[in-house]
Amino acid sequence: MTPQLELMKKLSKQTDSKILFVVIDGLGGHPVKPGGESELEMATLPHLDSIARDGVTGLLHPVMPGVTPGSGPAHLALFGYDPLVYDVGRGLLSALGIDFPLQNGDVAARVNFATLDAGGMIVDRRAGRISSETGARLATLLDGMEIDGVRVFVRPEREYRAVLVHRGEGLSAELSDTDPQKTGIPPLAVEALEPAAQRAAEAANAFVERARERLQGEPQANGVLLRGFEAHREFPSMSDVYRLRSAAVAAYPMYRGVTRLIGMDVLDAGDTLETEMEAVRKNIGRFDFFYFHVKKTDSAGEDGAPEKKAHELEAFDAVLGRLLELPFDVVVATGDHSTPSTLRAHSWHPVPVALRAPNCRPDDVDRFTEAACLRGGLGQIPSTALMPIVLANAGKLEKYGA
Amino acid sequence: MTPQLELMKKLSKQTDSKILFVVIDGLGGHPVKPGGESELEMATLPHLDSIARDGVTGLLHPVMPGVTPGSGPAHLALFGYDPLVYDVGRGLLSALGIDFPLQNGDVAARVNFATLDAGGMIVDRRAGRISSETGARLATLLDGMEIDGVRVFVRPEREYRAVLVHRGEGLSAELSDTDPQKTGIPPLAVEALEPAAQRAAEAANAFVERARERLQGEPQANGVLLRGFEAHREFPSMSDVYRLRSAAVAAYPMYRGVTRLIGMDVLDAGDTLETEMEAVRKNIGRFDFFYFHVKKTDSAGEDGAPEKKAHELEAFDAVLGRLLELPFDVVVATGDHSTPSTLRAHSWHPVPVALRAPNCRPDDVDRFTEAACLRGGLGQIPSTALMPIVLANAGKLEKYGA
Repeated sequence: MTPQLELMKKLSKQTDSKILFVVIDGLGGHPVKPGGESELEMATLPHLDSIARDGVTGLLHPVMPGVTPGSGPAHLALFGYDPLVYDVGRGLLSALGIDFPLQNGDVAARVNFATLDAGGMIVDRRAGRISSETGARLATLLDGMEIDGVRVFVRPEREYRAVLVHRGEGLSAELSDTDPQKTGIPPLAVEALEPAAQRAAEAANAFVERARERLQGEPQANGVLLRGFEAHREFPSMSDVYRLRSAAVAAYPMYRGVTRLIGMDVLDAGDTLETEMEAVRKNIGRFDFFYFHVKKTDSAGEDGAPEKKAHELEAFDAVLGRLLELPFDVVVATGDHSTPSTLRAHSWHPVPVALRAPNCRPDDVDRFTEAACLRGGLGQIPSTALMPIVLANAGKLEKYGA
Repeated sequence: MTPQLELMKKLSKQTDSKILFVVIDGLGGHPVKPGGESELEMATLPHLDSIARDGVTGLLHPVMPGVTPGSGPAHLALFGYDPLVYDVGRGLLSALGIDFPLQNGDVAARVNFATLDAGGMIVDRRAGRISSETGARLATLLDGMEIDGVRVFVRPEREYRAVLVHRGEGLSAELSDTDPQKTGIPPLAVEALEPAAQRAAEAANAFVERARERLQGEPQANGVLLRGFEAHREFPSMSDVYRLRSAAVAAYPMYRGVTRLIGMDVLDAGDTLETEMEAVRKNIGRFDFFYFHVKKTDSAGEDGAPEKKAHELEAFDAVLGRLLELPFDVVVATGDHSTPSTLRAHSWHPVPVALRAPNCRPDDVDRFTEAACLRGGLGQIPSTALMPIVLANAGKLEKYGA
């Protein structure tokens, strides 16, 4: 455990206060054109603004200034787990996101079904975005191999995406990707990045070969690309570190995966903001910490669609109004990372945060925007600094020392 | 030594410049009612405001954002000692605060005289707040036992509070408290928190038993509660790290204790702001660093009395006016931690700081309040970052590197 988590474990206490912890994916942006407005400034957000006005605001750096995070590390940081220490990659997140019952030592990787031409060159890294039904059928086709003492699991994720898990004695995950991230060239061979990974590399390359044989008849998905090999290990849990009964409300598998990794209860929350809100309402008595994930803001940012992103923000703000009717003592709204529409990608820009609680020290910020939160009372802090502040405001931390 | 202290030891030099380092206990707060004023905003503070106006301001985090500190760690942080590394608890502070001549390896604990009923249940954890005279008499009654090779010292602190010191070979301080922090149940037994602490635990439990025998006839203080067991060890001294001739001016024992722990000269300063000021005036030629402690602001905050806290701030401000007539080159005013009247307790909120020196870079802040200092030139920094800034402004730090 990091010193911060050790300290939190020492100071945390169980109380009845309730925390709503909203993560608006890809929240931050910047002016869509020079001198113009950011997506947050374009949107009308009465409820988010009210939290900023009545509470205390600031900006969060997910990893460190300048570093653009993936969703996994960005989320872990928000929950107080140093993302440079609790390093989690694509393979592990994918496996966790589909509820795969990982065992310690399992090596997981993300699979893309892909289209290869007769010469073995990659034509489409996503196999023409085959349907989830097709993806599921093909995963079943590849599932259950036994390669030189290694058990192979292949499980569908969504559309062209699947998860590969190798289970066997002494498998290392220090393996290179086969996905070259471009077309017109063949997939790469898996390479052992340390001598001890030799056996795991051979098993992975054998899997790729046998997969091509089994997929030979497929018109689109006749090959696989592998990336993000990773071994499963246990992370400290939210209940152990913070003494929290914590629930995750997220429509997308990966976010359920990362929260399950740190011991949150993943609620059955459907796949709309409405069903997510209902899941909170129904379970309000059972937990003291609700992580509520909003996905479509990030997708709109990645699509380069600022109006759509503003619209998604407004759609969530309406749902937030109803969440605020529930008996929460602390409400915090932030994002995992910025996704400016102009960049069509995650970015390094710090992320607005607003926290409302009876004993917070309000600042004079009254809007939930990048520019306003820059003047906020929390200042610019690492994302990992947020959880101690949230717990303090919830009355869930003992004093340090006499 | 932490890297910061190592660096300070390398860069510090002795000069004739003089520093006044004021610690207003429990300084920060927040609005007493929503939209209202904090205690600092209610008070009229011409001298503190003048330091803010002419100098540079900011906010300090004693341990880290969100963490509420005790006075010991909060003070150590102000003097540049990382409170997570130089971890000091109640027992040690209490013993140091009464000038007990601790030796390395001594195990100290805080004693509360308490009232127990016929069945051994705790009726009053403070024995009806017996007088200091009674406390002193009872401490003498318990002092001087010899338990299986362990020498026992019991010394009065104030009212119902006393200090227990065990001296013997190989005593561990990894012991649990007997004080359950509530009434209606019996005191807990001391438990060894590591196998090596078995002998120390037995000695402590034997002490509790013998104390009950000796206190049998007492109407109020017929039992003892122990907490904060701690072994004495040496900390780096201010003279060694900073090459400072440093003096502590504090009316309350614990603050004399923590400063003695880091090698400050504790002046005989009486117990009012007036006598404290006189102690500074009389000794101005002998030291180049004066720590000046103001206690009653914290007490008013803990009493939930905002007007009283504002009044205590004003009372100190008047004394500060006279301190500023003395030839100080650097004046810094801050607190160890916040104690908002609304919370009636220490809190995690960052603490205002203002520093005036000929070569500081002034900001445009002209009031010494939480909201104003949020806009200050020092930003929001850890308390441990203050000492290097103070020393730099006093011309007491060499350049780092060529």
